[in-house]
This record gives sequence, C-alpha cells and structure tokens, in this order.
Amino acid sequence: MTDTKFDFGLVGLGVMGRNFILNVADNDFSAIGLDLDKEKVDSLLSEGEGRVVHATQDKIEFINKLASPRKIMLLVPAGKPVDAVINDLKPHLSEGDIIIDGGNSFFTDTNRRFEELAADSIHFFGAGVSGGAKGARKGPSIMPGGDKQAYAFIKPIFEAASAKVNGEPCVAHLGNGSAGNYVKMVHNGIEYGLMQLISEAYLLMKNGMGRSNSEIQRAFATWNNGRLKSFLIEITSEIFNKKDDLADGDLIDAILDKGKQKGTGKWTSQNAMDLGIPIPTIDVAVSMREISALKSQRVAAENLYGKKAINSSELTIEQLEEALFFSFIVTYAQGMQQLVYASEAYNYELNLETIAKIWRGGCIIRAELLEQMRIAFDKNPSLENLLLDESFAEMIKPLLPSASKVITEGMNAQIPLAAMSAGLNYFNAFTSGRLPMNLVQAQRDHFGSHTYERLDRDGIFHTEW
Amino acid sequence: MTDTKFDFGLVGLGVMGRNFILNVADNDFSAIGLDLDKEKVDSLLSEGEGRVVHATQDKIEFINKLASPRKIMLLVPAGKPVDAVINDLKPHLSEGDIIIDGGNSFFTDTNRRFEELAADSIHFFGAGVSGGAKGARKGPSIMPGGDKQAYAFIKPIFEAASAKVNGEPCVAHLGNGSAGNYVKMVHNGIEYGLMQLISEAYLLMKNGMGRSNSEIQRAFATWNNGRLKSFLIEITSEIFNKKDDLADGDLIDAILDKGKQKGTGKWTSQNAMDLGIPIPTIDVAVSMREISALKSQRVAAENLYGKKAINSSELTIEQLEEALFFSFIVTYAQGMQQLVYASEAYNYELNLETIAKIWRGGCIIRAELLEQMRIAFDKNPSLENLLLDESFAEMIKPLLPSASKVITEGMNAQIPLAAMSAGLNYFNAFTSGRLPMNLVQAQRDHFGSHTYERLDRDGIFHTEW
Repeated sequence: MTDTKFDFGLVGLGVMGRNFILNVADNDFSAIGLDLDKEKVDSLLSEGEGRVVHATQDKIEFINKLASPRKIMLLVPAGKPVDAVINDLKPHLSEGDIIIDGGNSFFTDTNRRFEELAADSIHFFGAGVSGGAKGARKGPSIMPGGDKQAYAFIKPIFEAASAKVNGEPCVAHLGNGSAGNYVKMVHNGIEYGLMQLISEAYLLMKNGMGRSNSEIQRAFATWNNGRLKSFLIEITSEIFNKKDDLADGDLIDAILDKGKQKGTGKWTSQNAMDLGIPIPTIDVAVSMREISALKSQRVAAENLYGKKAINSSELTIEQLEEALFFSFIVTYAQGMQQLVYASEAYNYELNLETIAKIWRGGCIIRAELLEQMRIAFDKNPSLENLLLDESFAEMIKPLLPSASKVITEGMNAQIPLAAMSAGLNYFNAFTSGRLPMNLVQAQRDHFGSHTYERLDRDGIFHTEW
Repeated sequence: MTDTKFDFGLVGLGVMGRNFILNVADNDFSAIGLDLDKEKVDSLLSEGEGRVVHATQDKIEFINKLASPRKIMLLVPAGKPVDAVINDLKPHLSEGDIIIDGGNSFFTDTNRRFEELAADSIHFFGAGVSGGAKGARKGPSIMPGGDKQAYAFIKPIFEAASAKVNGEPCVAHLGNGSAGNYVKMVHNGIEYGLMQLISEAYLLMKNGMGRSNSEIQRAFATWNNGRLKSFLIEITSEIFNKKDDLADGDLIDAILDKGKQKGTGKWTSQNAMDLGIPIPTIDVAVSMREISALKSQRVAAENLYGKKAINSSELTIEQLEEALFFSFIVTYAQGMQQLVYASEAYNYELNLETIAKIWRGGCIIRAELLEQMRIAFDKNPSLENLLLDESFAEMIKPLLPSASKVITEGMNAQIPLAAMSAGLNYFNAFTSGRLPMNLVQAQRDHFGSHTYERLDRDGIFHTEW
C-alpha cells in the first residue's frame, strides 16, 4: 500500500464516517480514514477489505498518502471538534488542498473557517449530509457550499457517492461560503416540522379516532403508497410494526414521550426571525419538543385539569391524509421561503430548483412532493413562496375543507395539534390581502408614538389618540 | 443656578427623556438633562419652568452639576448610542457614580457594560421602563437590575417617579446584572402576544361575526370593565372611537396592515429557544408581524385562492371574551415561565411575585389579572408555571369550552387565529401527561441512531428498526 495515493480522505470514523468512506470506496475511489481511536481504525480496515480503503491513527501518514490537491472530509461533531481537527491538520497541508466539513456546523462558524483557511490558500466547504447512517452507506443527499472552482475536484466523488433519482445525483454545488450548511439547517428545520405533523396525525388517530396501533400502521403504509410517499412516512409505518423485545406489546407504546433535539431546528427558527421570514410550523415543532421535555409538569397539570377523553369521531383516514398532505406542503413552503430570503441576505445565490432536486432522494425529508417543488421553481426561478405557484394552488384548494375540519375537530376534542393548526393559520394569513395588523399599528402609535402608514395615501402618520 | 447640585441627571431629551425628567422634578428631585440638540435642551428648559430642572448641551457642566454619587440615566436608542454616551461620559466620572440605561438594550450588551464599568468602579444598571411617553410623564413601571447596594441611591427617585398601585410603587430592584433588561424584554414579548390576540379578537368580530366598528368598540369597552381590564384593551376601545381626519370613516380602517417591530419580541422568542422554554403564543405573534409585512405576496395569494367570506356566526361576544381571557392567561403563563428559567440560567435571582407586582401599574401589559399572578407567586415562590396554580386552574376550567369553540369555529371560517390557537394547543399539550413525542423519538432513533428512553425502565435504548 505504501505507494498508493488515495483519492479521498475522511476524518472521524464513527458510524457516519465509516459508512461514507465505504460508500466512496464502493464507487471506485480510493479512500483513507483517520481516527485517534484504534478500534474505529481497525473496524474500518476489516470492513473495507476487498476495496481500496485504508485507515490510520497517524495524521502524517494520512496526509502523505492523499493525492494532490488533498480532499479531506470531516465527519466529527459540530463546534470545537471541527476547529480542533482543522488546526491539527492545517500545518501539514499544501496550497489548494480542500477541507470539507460534513457535519451540522452553524453557518456563521463555516463563514469564519472559510475565511481563516482562505488566508492559507486552503479551500473550505461546508457540506450538509442527510440520510442518516444508512444514507451515508448507500447514498445520502449532499449539500456542499464553498468555492465553485474547487468544487470540480470533489464533484466526481460526491456525485458517485450520493443518492440518485432518475439517474440524477442528489448533490450539487449550492452556493458560496456557508450556503451548504445553511441549506442543511433549513432541511433539518423542515424535518422537525414534518416529524411533529406526523406525531399529531398519530395522536389524532389514537385519541381522536380511537384507532389501534395496527390500524395506525396501515394508515401510514397506505399513505406511503400515495402522494404522501416520503421517507418519514415510510419509517413511521415501520415503527408501528415493531414489537417490544423487553415487554409485551408494541415498542412505540414503551417509548418515553420527551423529545430531544440537537439544535438545528432551533437555529432554523432563530435565524428565520433574524431574516423576518415566518416559519411558524417549524417554530412550534421546536416548542413542542420543549413542552414534551417538561414531562413532570405535564403530569402534574393533567392531574389538575383532568385526563383528556379518547374520542371516536366521524373523521376518516382519507380526511386525515388530506390534512396531513396540506400541512406537509405548507411546511416545505415556509422552509423554501426562508431559503429564498437567506440567499438574498447572505449572497448565497441559491437555486431553489436545484435544492428541490437534490432533496428528492437520500435525505430525511425526501418525498414525492419534492418533484412538484422542483417543477415550480424551474417554471419560476424567482418564486417567493410555493403557495403562489398555480399548480400548488390547484393541489391545495381541494385539501382545504378536510384540513380545516380535521384540525378544528381535533382541537375541539382537546387534542394538541400545534403544528397542523400553525400551518392552517399560516395559510389563512398568507392568503389574506387584509390582516388585522392595522390595529397593532394603531396600538403602537397610541402608546409609543411609533407612527403608522395608511392604505389610501403615502407618508408616515401619527395621531393623538 | 451655579451652585445647585442636582439629584438626578438624564441623557437624551427625546419625548421619553423629557417626560421622565419632568416626572422626576414633579416629585421634588432636582434634575438636569443633557442633549447635543439645542432645540431639545431649550424645549426642556421652557417646559421645566417652575421646577428645579436644568438642561444643557455641555457634558462637563452636566457632570459638574450632579451631586455625588452621580445618578445618570440614559434614554437613548439601544445599541451603539448607549456605548457612545458611556464612553463619552466615563472619563469625567468618579468612583461610585451610577449609570442607568433606561432603554431596551439586549441583555448581553448590559452584561458587557456592567463588567466594563465595574472595572472603573462605576455602577451600571439596566432598567427597563414601560409605559410609553405618557407613562414616562405620569408614572411608568420601572424594571432595574444591577448592584443591590448601589440601588439604594436611586431607589427614592425611582419609587417617587414610578406608577403606584394601592400606594405601592411599580418599581423594585429585580436582580443582578442584566436582570432588568431581561425582564423588560419578556414584558415586551408578552406585549406582542397580547396585541396579536386582541387583533385576532377584532378580526373574529369583524369577519367571523360581521360586527361593525362601533359594535367592536363597545365590546372592548365592556371587556375593559371586567376581568380583561388592562391598558391594551382600554386603548383598543379608544382606537375604535377615532374618526379619520383625512377621509370619511373610522381611522382604524385607513391604517395599513403591515406590522412593524423593533426587535424585543424576536429577542424574547430567540432566547426562549436557547433556554428550551416554550412560548408559542409569543413566537407566533412575531411570525404574524412578519407575514403581515409580506403584503404584496398576501394580495397575490388572495387573488389566487379567493377572498375569504364574511360570516355571521352564532358566536357571542361573551364567548369571545372567555376565549380572549383564556388566551391572555396562557400568554402571561408562557412569559412568566421563561422568567423562571432565565433566572436560573443567568443567576438573576428573580422574584416572580415582585415582577407581577410592579407590572400591575404603569406598563403596557398592566392588567387586573396581574394581581392574581402576584398572589399565585406569593403563595408558591417556586411555581414553575401559572397553569399549575390551583386558583388559576379554577379560573381557566370554565373558560375552556368557549375558548375551544370560538377558536375552532373561527378557524373553520378561514380566519387566521394564529396566537389564540397556539395558546389553546399549548394549554392542551401542557396538560397532557402523554404526548406523541414517543413517535418522534422512535423516528430519530430509526434514521439517526439517536437512542430513546422508555417509560417502564431506566436506561438509554437503541433499536435496529
């Protein structure tokens, strides 16, 4: 092996890293991994047999064995570990070498690293990778951002390793600087929204319609054969199939209802507020994880206010499917609009059609629906919101009666449907030419002399109320 | 005047500053103002006649004329102007002097200034002031945070100038460092929530119940005589009384429905997410201002989806009052819980009873309801959420049927009720011992091996789904 120069290097041989490097090697690129942990190195060496894969604990060996320009991907936890690895490798790199951060780094960190490495003529990419462990192994969706010319060196490897839809790779150079991390962040925000929506559909079936786990399983499996077809609906149907190994019953019933989070949903919401772009479905998905974490307070509150009844309403699974499909569309619309405005604010020059295209496969939010989004942005590259696309309008209109009915009947039965109702209210507000915000402006002028504008003439006005 | 030493100095003689200094002087404290703008100085000099008030453009005169320790309040825009004034004054101050920032400064800025000034033995206070221009003149609610011992020097002036409720001043030392700015930030977040809720009640009456402006005016005026009695309901009834000076009709109908914001609501939401505390009513109040700002998109969307019908539902004004009162309670509960957790996270040692007490008068969110909150926190100083107080539970339970009915009927009529429904869903989630977050945990374990906990035994589990 001593003379081999490897095409691709990967630092961090955890599950994601090991799987991704094997994926690269399966696609006929030679690859070398670096990790301080001997076990992880050995594990890759044994799993990699039969492929041109090497692994080492020695960073000098790792660097010397990489072909020029070196293409080094990091799959280490976001934050300080990324800086530590970069600082460790940097003195040994050459001009023109390429570092790719494949983690969920916060986009401003990526901008800083981009600048710092540019000073040493090293190219830096922030590349969101979605698809979980299985995606890393079999083909994820990859969202790289950084210098466009340097991307040419990593493009063949990423295109080979990524998921394919109709033969098209689920990877593309998305834009400058931190564009890739930003797009991945919003991807994860949408993921939070969709997961919350699915959990609400589950609760509606369970407590609103009195359905059993196996009936719920069948509903998700059926939906996954239709327009809701998506990775998250698919795995949900699998989850409801799983028996509990440790006790009688279905595993879903044994799992604690405290939602954990790693922060990308929160970042999406916080940054949308900085941009001034409304993404209430995603915001409330974050809130619901927070409420769920207050388990002991919830139990105390249930004791105080009384347990909610299980209902068996007249709602049908078909109506629920319509409500969920409506809610999915609105969630994507919010996230996509955030990307439109972020592109402008941060000079990413994002192409929304490309993003919809590379999200069609490999990633957690992949769904049949993304092809419709791709078409909408292809037809009108400056589309500000998917709800303004005529094909989407035609898709949405027939869903509205069921969406309203399902959500309001559920809420009337005391079922918390925070994300579904946030989506419905968002839709109803976004499609209202006139909102009651005139009153808020009047109030602000009344107590704070903040002034207001008028409908009938230009200018800034103040009234002594 | 040359020998007079003034009790109190104020920098920034805009409306708020001028009004506050006159208020201080009315309460028999001598006061001197500083502003670079000659017009503002002259205006205070003429308005201040008959009181011991002076004003100058000369910072050296200003500083020399202040009694020791100097008590200097800044009422200048948040951000750089605050730093500029501090840096300008600092070289001329003495050890033990006190600077009070009365603006809406972001709490981390206050922490930084606190440290910087402490290095020069100057005391720094961040003091939220609420009540608008009128409050500043007649008695605002003041929320100071900083060194407790130094507070003794400003306490007599603030207590004299603040609003009074049952003879008790609406000011108190709230806690260390930036406690005052933080409490004021959350105050403003609650204000965003309440204003949005009132605007939704307006829309419900207008488009859901087909009521006229004068009928809406009467509803708010009536509500202000009951348990909803509050500053915001009161000014709303005044707003609906106002005729348009520039055109026929009521002024409310001429005002543009684009909500502006100065950022404190956004900060509240963003920071609540950092703390992991759910405040969805406030979050969505921020979102709704953002949606309202997308006016041209809303008009285009209305053209695409069709104008919403005006309804004349069977809902009564009494039911709406119940729904609004319910929504108010839930909004305060969210903000108060954020304060409980912020106190812990930032070592503020906040006393929630004191906060409820000083919010009862002077400030924008003052309301009869605050006395109930004061009692609840007095009874249980470690109350984590107002919804867990038994008196609140007794108050809330009878409201629930109307709240559910009003909100769901309104949503069924395509009326965007984002804040009301966020509050209802928050309540229904918070009072659910079991939420469907088990499914989200299962999904996270399925695609990302993020593990989960179980209901029936301790430990961390992972399943090969």
